[in-house]
Amino acid sequence: MKKSLGAKTILYPAPVLVIGTYDKEDRPNVMTAAWGGICCSSPPCVAVALRKATYTYGNIVLQGGFTINIPSEQHVIYKEFPFVLECKLIQQIEIGLHTQFIGEILDIKADKGVLDQNGQMDILKVKPILYAPEANIYYDLGTFLGNAFSIGQEVKKKPWNIINDCKNF
Amino acid sequence: MKKSLGAKTILYPAPVLVIGTYDKEDRPNVMTAAWGGICCSSPPCVAVALRKATYTYGNIVLQGGFTINIPSEQHVIYKEFPFVLECKLIQQIEIGLHTQFIGEILDIKADKGVLDQNGQMDILKVKPILYAPEANIYYDLGTFLGNAFSIGQEVKKKPWNIINDCKNF
Repeated sequence: MKKSLGAKTILYPAPVLVIGTYDKEDRPNVMTAAWGGICCSSPPCVAVALRKATYTYGNIVLQGGFTINIPSEQHVIYKEFPFVLECKLIQQIEIGLHTQFIGEILDIKADKGVLDQNGQMDILKVKPILYAPEANIYYDLGTFLGNAFSIGQEVKKKPWNIINDCKNF
Repeated sequence: MKKSLGAKTILYPAPVLVIGTYDKEDRPNVMTAAWGGICCSSPPCVAVALRKATYTYGNIVLQGGFTINIPSEQHVIYKEFPFVLECKLIQQIEIGLHTQFIGEILDIKADKGVLDQNGQMDILKVKPILYAPEANIYYDLGTFLGNAFSIGQEVKKKPWNIINDCKNF
């Protein structure tokens, strides 16, 4: 038996993204955003949704690009984030209060301190911050649960009964 | 000194979303997706990006709606997820390999077992799963780091030097 909570913007986990832009006088600016994430594999693209009222909105429209910086728990007030996606604006989607910017990821740059011995990103070294919408609380990353592919195989063997909830589109 | 990793689709944390749809014969179907998240506050909207090759893609286009179910660590092979967003398709964005579907959230339904004493969602009871792209590993939720607003106030007092990385748009 489920309880209806109404139309809310709750989805767990939300990321903590720091959007970097330049304004018309080439001054750097940052803002924190939670409504965003990867949206395409090829070309590699990331989306972030902002209100028009933000300073960052105007900067992205003006400059045609932005960075998405991933703060980590130990770097949250550090001068530089360990992990940055460099993006070129390719689409601007009007949704409602928020406009969604889709940026093609041109490069990822990472501090060596967050790479593993093979030079690949290591989430345990990045220590990303997780955001819980509505409660407005940050959490850190927990522990290893399993390999995505293996859990998927287990799921395939089980019966499902989860779709009753989408009958009232 | 940062190392360039090239154009990749890494962003931490990514959510684990189970997309529920019906096919043309009204048979339920589910697939797991990681490229999605909230994209607008008003109207409340969520986006999910899928390849055209998926069965779910055709179902969403056909039915004009979908659900996003949030699995939790103890419910990953359970018959029903504790937390579901019921969505009506409002926009379809062609990006590249992936098409992004934007759904207006019509309702959220949640099991009483994941609500707090005030009837609000409690992330510690949901126990969402976190996905690390590329490594393909699932993690659980960690511990309380702080209140989003308070940490933001601390950040405002500090100097920044993070924007050098977005000079090469």
